Amino acid sequence: MNPLSPPTRTLLGPGPSMVHPRVLAALAMPTVGHLDPYFQQVMDDVKQLLRDAFRTRNDFTIPVSGTGSAGMEAALCNFIEPGDNVLICVKGYFGERLYDMACRYTPNVDRLERPWGEAFDPDEVAAALKAKAYKLVAIVHCETSTGILQPGIEQIAAAAHDNGALLVLDTVASWPGVPVEVDAWGVDVTYAGSQKCLSAPPGLAPITLSRRARETLRNRKTKVANWYLDLSALEAYWGSGKRTYHHTAPVNMIYALREALILVQEEGLDNLHARHRNVAEMLWEGLEALGLPPRAPIGLRSPTLTTPRLPEGMDEAALRQRLLHEYNIEIAGGFGPLAGQIWRIGLMGHSARKENVTLLLAALRELQAGS
Amino acid sequence: MNPLSPPTRTLLGPGPSMVHPRVLAALAMPTVGHLDPYFQQVMDDVKQLLRDAFRTRNDFTIPVSGTGSAGMEAALCNFIEPGDNVLICVKGYFGERLYDMACRYTPNVDRLERPWGEAFDPDEVAAALKAKAYKLVAIVHCETSTGILQPGIEQIAAAAHDNGALLVLDTVASWPGVPVEVDAWGVDVTYAGSQKCLSAPPGLAPITLSRRARETLRNRKTKVANWYLDLSALEAYWGSGKRTYHHTAPVNMIYALREALILVQEEGLDNLHARHRNVAEMLWEGLEALGLPPRAPIGLRSPTLTTPRLPEGMDEAALRQRLLHEYNIEIAGGFGPLAGQIWRIGLMGHSARKENVTLLLAALRELQAGS
Repeated sequence: MNPLSPPTRTLLGPGPSMVHPRVLAALAMPTVGHLDPYFQQVMDDVKQLLRDAFRTRNDFTIPVSGTGSAGMEAALCNFIEPGDNVLICVKGYFGERLYDMACRYTPNVDRLERPWGEAFDPDEVAAALKAKAYKLVAIVHCETSTGILQPGIEQIAAAAHDNGALLVLDTVASWPGVPVEVDAWGVDVTYAGSQKCLSAPPGLAPITLSRRARETLRNRKTKVANWYLDLSALEAYWGSGKRTYHHTAPVNMIYALREALILVQEEGLDNLHARHRNVAEMLWEGLEALGLPPRAPIGLRSPTLTTPRLPEGMDEAALRQRLLHEYNIEIAGGFGPLAGQIWRIGLMGHSARKENVTLLLAALRELQAGS
Repeated sequence: MNPLSPPTRTLLGPGPSMVHPRVLAALAMPTVGHLDPYFQQVMDDVKQLLRDAFRTRNDFTIPVSGTGSAGMEAALCNFIEPGDNVLICVKGYFGERLYDMACRYTPNVDRLERPWGEAFDPDEVAAALKAKAYKLVAIVHCETSTGILQPGIEQIAAAAHDNGALLVLDTVASWPGVPVEVDAWGVDVTYAGSQKCLSAPPGLAPITLSRRARETLRNRKTKVANWYLDLSALEAYWGSGKRTYHHTAPVNMIYALREALILVQEEGLDNLHARHRNVAEMLWEGLEALGLPPRAPIGLRSPTLTTPRLPEGMDEAALRQRLLHEYNIEIAGGFGPLAGQIWRIGLMGHSARKENVTLLLAALRELQAGS
């Protein structure tokens, strides 16, 4: 077999994003045991750095040993018992995934729906929470299938709490590229992925639990129907007392996560948000000029993921192929009801740099001129 | 925060084992997208290399995106539906874990038990399979808590099939350090971890399914009660047709897995088994001379994990601390009913080298002389 020799791509799809050289270097540091005293310090560092990046004081803040979808499943399966009523807000593919997962843990799952490409009015979520008693409501912050950033999370959290429900928030495609204020908003369960705005390699899912979420966990009557993602057991390993082995932590991935979080700390969250916003605005302007205006209304547009509306009849797949093969640039197509109608262009983490926007726009101009 | 600077340990515990420099280099290669054509080739390579290392022609042979325990859970949750009868063979901690997991998927789980440190007589497993109809029987090959290598897997597989059950085999601590003959033995579901005898970093769980196991999967009446580990959905991503996105594959970890598998291919499985056997025998002899004879009978002793019997009154934890702090050597203590009675010394993958045995024995001699 050939030696491994991956091409050097400019990753401007919906994730994974480009990994900073310091993070790749951390990834390749010598493996130590998962109970090594050095590694225990690394775990403590990671917990503190995650808290800072989520703007929370939640003691239970750890990376789950799987990709963002494992974080999503952990966020549901630990808080749902068979028979519980659950409300899932569906406004794109990842809302659908939340619904699919939730149905595996209780038969009583209601959907609140908006067409792909729209956001919810927080009032309608509040009304649904008032109309029926739910254990939990889940919603996606930045919907990766549409680029829509859900506003009013604070209001939705308040409505959830007023009606005795937990709020689960998917920040896979938003955190930490846009503000995610776990404590100020009052979110109970917040999860993300390592590979998008944090720019670590894919494979870890940070998650943070409020006091209320932990109480729900403690008050379960049944065992969590998922051993690997059982957060009570993970707490025994990640907690501050004697560390009880659960599964072998992905040591090198956690090295990488720590380094990616230190890069966030060095830049500062406010600067990081401003950088994501600035490059996104540059992209939006450039796309408008190319006749590819962002589909999402400006007020609902996530800086992390832009979804230009494509002209009818454009062979969008061929153009993406040329971007990849001639320019080593990855962007993604739309799918589901938006297939063929949009692209999905991510500017996340280490990919969110001015030079990448300049390159992409220039490449698109060349391809337009040549066609 | 301090720059990441993990100590260079000689990892001789029950895993993770030391990672070959070529594997660490592969891990740090530039990330590409999980649907990138280059990565699709990497996936095909990994599937073929895994088949070779499992000595199987099973088409469905993939790495699950989690540690060995995720492989264990995938091996159970996909084949158990609520109400199914399941038989779990428990002869140590990982048998207990199989039992705990299985109980989360059906209430009808029977235990066949042996004390920690013993193996099953294949006849008794066959008799249990004949006495009651089971959908599935699961057993651990090398029990990481005891160092016992279960003999007679082929006979157990035949008994399972004669009685309409699937055989699930845990090879986390054996594969590929000792022969695991998936096809010749007729195992239906075999899973392992990346971080032991394969010597890739922790975080992936190779799994391979027989034709019979895939039929069982296709004939399920209910959805798998676990979205992340749903093998039918994973097959749509890893399969040979159009690749359907499931979750973002841990790209860099899969680079590392590929390189670790190429190292196995270069060495050859027979040579690799002989190396594990040779260094283990050297260790066993040295431990005998030190008054720390292996507890497992020679015929049931796994070369990958040696469990010396400790003299009464020895402060074994203090000795392990000194090995770690003075010599940078990691070995592990016993736990459960064997706590304080044994050590667990792994010679797995890139850790299974003569120089590591020499170093460990010399360090132990120094500590004995100094005490």
